Amino acid sequence: MKKLINDPADVVVDALRGVAAAHPELRVDLENRIVVRGDAPVQSHVGVISGGGSGHEPLHGGFVGPGMLDAAVAGEVFTSPTPDQITAATTAVAGGAGVLHIVKNYTGDVLNFQLAAELADDEGIKVETVLVDDDVAVQDSLYTAGRRGTGGTVVVEKVSGALAATGADLDEVAAIGRRANQASRSFGIALTPCIVPAAGTPTFELGPDEIEIGIGIHGEPGRERRPIGPASELAAVATQAILDDGTLDRGDEALVIVNGMGGTPLIELYLVFGEVAKLLGDRGITVARRLVGNYVTSLEMSGFMLTLTKLDADLTRLWDAPVNTPGLHWGV
Amino acid sequence: MKKLINDPADVVVDALRGVAAAHPELRVDLENRIVVRGDAPVQSHVGVISGGGSGHEPLHGGFVGPGMLDAAVAGEVFTSPTPDQITAATTAVAGGAGVLHIVKNYTGDVLNFQLAAELADDEGIKVETVLVDDDVAVQDSLYTAGRRGTGGTVVVEKVSGALAATGADLDEVAAIGRRANQASRSFGIALTPCIVPAAGTPTFELGPDEIEIGIGIHGEPGRERRPIGPASELAAVATQAILDDGTLDRGDEALVIVNGMGGTPLIELYLVFGEVAKLLGDRGITVARRLVGNYVTSLEMSGFMLTLTKLDADLTRLWDAPVNTPGLHWGV
Repeated sequence: MKKLINDPADVVVDALRGVAAAHPELRVDLENRIVVRGDAPVQSHVGVISGGGSGHEPLHGGFVGPGMLDAAVAGEVFTSPTPDQITAATTAVAGGAGVLHIVKNYTGDVLNFQLAAELADDEGIKVETVLVDDDVAVQDSLYTAGRRGTGGTVVVEKVSGALAATGADLDEVAAIGRRANQASRSFGIALTPCIVPAAGTPTFELGPDEIEIGIGIHGEPGRERRPIGPASELAAVATQAILDDGTLDRGDEALVIVNGMGGTPLIELYLVFGEVAKLLGDRGITVARRLVGNYVTSLEMSGFMLTLTKLDADLTRLWDAPVNTPGLHWGV
Repeated sequence: MKKLINDPADVVVDALRGVAAAHPELRVDLENRIVVRGDAPVQSHVGVISGGGSGHEPLHGGFVGPGMLDAAVAGEVFTSPTPDQITAATTAVAGGAGVLHIVKNYTGDVLNFQLAAELADDEGIKVETVLVDDDVAVQDSLYTAGRRGTGGTVVVEKVSGALAATGADLDEVAAIGRRANQASRSFGIALTPCIVPAAGTPTFELGPDEIEIGIGIHGEPGRERRPIGPASELAAVATQAILDDGTLDRGDEALVIVNGMGGTPLIELYLVFGEVAKLLGDRGITVARRLVGNYVTSLEMSGFMLTLTKLDADLTRLWDAPVNTPGLHWGV
């Protein structure tokens, strides 16, 4: 295992030290391993938090800042954060209007965020939860009952944070988050596995020409393994899998995210984006907004995840709203 | 070779098709393989262009937009663009105030940009050139006489573009570019090689625990190979190599870039940033500005490149100036 780390046991806290040094506008609580907006809690605004296992950067810590998350909770690599950590983040962002938990659908995350929500309720903080389950690849999975939460998380975090910034109430912010999740579908393809530092060995094995179709962001198995084909074919597989799920029709406008899993060069991600744009154009679907790069990663895994969100006027406006975070920054 | 490509011969043009689809605010000329600001040429402003071999994305195409480059020229992967391509970009951004060429110091790039500058001169376009040679690792190299141009290119492109945006004249814009280059030093470490699509095999070989100290952005050899150590040690090697070059002293302010080479997870880059910040703090050098992520890559190579720029009031102001490109975006 060759990684830029010190002790594998300290990876998350060492990286958070770097986040603290790099982003003086954020507060990093090393003990609780949470990243918080420097001006939190914003009084009378809904606090929006998310979190999960580390190893998916910039998700979630890189999306903390005005217009997106108020705080992020970092678990160990590919491991859910504890209820105590989540409670610390919830308390840190509670400005009197309640707190939204955005939770990717993994069994551990769901359980621990639920416990934290109950603890917050005991302290008089009202919590609503949006469960993200956008991955169409498989129904149940290694760590999930139901669909997994993957690339769509970026969309849910962005639009929820944007609405919270307007002073909307907790029910409204939760509703837009749920709507963004409902409108989003994702599908991933892996070319190589990744190595969790504490384990030291690849999460799975693939042959020299073999790829995994429908991969999860922790290397959970997808639909099938097959020999690699041209990017045009892989783009078509991912696009078709999402369209088969029936959210997007001719005449619709889509937000298209071609997300790298961490180890794929940007030149390849743009190439895939070009293929996806062509396929959607052929179906009469307009690429109205787009994002190409590493947003929800799986350490150094190579491959891509396609996320398509059906846009409406509200989602488009909230997607376009100013955001100022290390991982997404525009309009301000 | 597992890559998200179609025909290896078409990688660059296929990727540029994706750039065109993803960024309607840019003009992509597929025939000349250049990326141009949508509103170029900006009348009475100096045009700022750069370019070089592809495979270093987001450099250079991802830095085209208001406040940075007016155009970028994409050669084949790791191969200089032709004089004709460079001339096309020069002409496209010539608004009557001359054009600045920012050229990384590689023999092919230097020669072809020089030929293009002469062709432009024949057409009545005044061209000045800033040569970037910030890499302290080696004196001469596989493709270079003198030091190589690497991570400092981002700084040169940013401050030159920012000054051009104020309406400064060609001599002034060239002077600030040269000053940014003089103030910048870089040093890279590779953990793994990369594969050029047309070649299909790794550019070099490293053992399972071996790293290359002082690597170039095309995998050119550095100073030595050695077994991997903890990130704190690797950060110290890179930091010391730059400080030994004598640009930064106690009391100085630095821009610190921890740049990924393409295949390293962001969590590791932040971890390295934390180590570098600590080392600089111990030397009494203030980390005044910073950037952590993939900016000058080497396809999917894993490892990092450290760039330190000694800041003064002008460089800081120009670094902070608004920029709106796919790869860097702030303040607007």
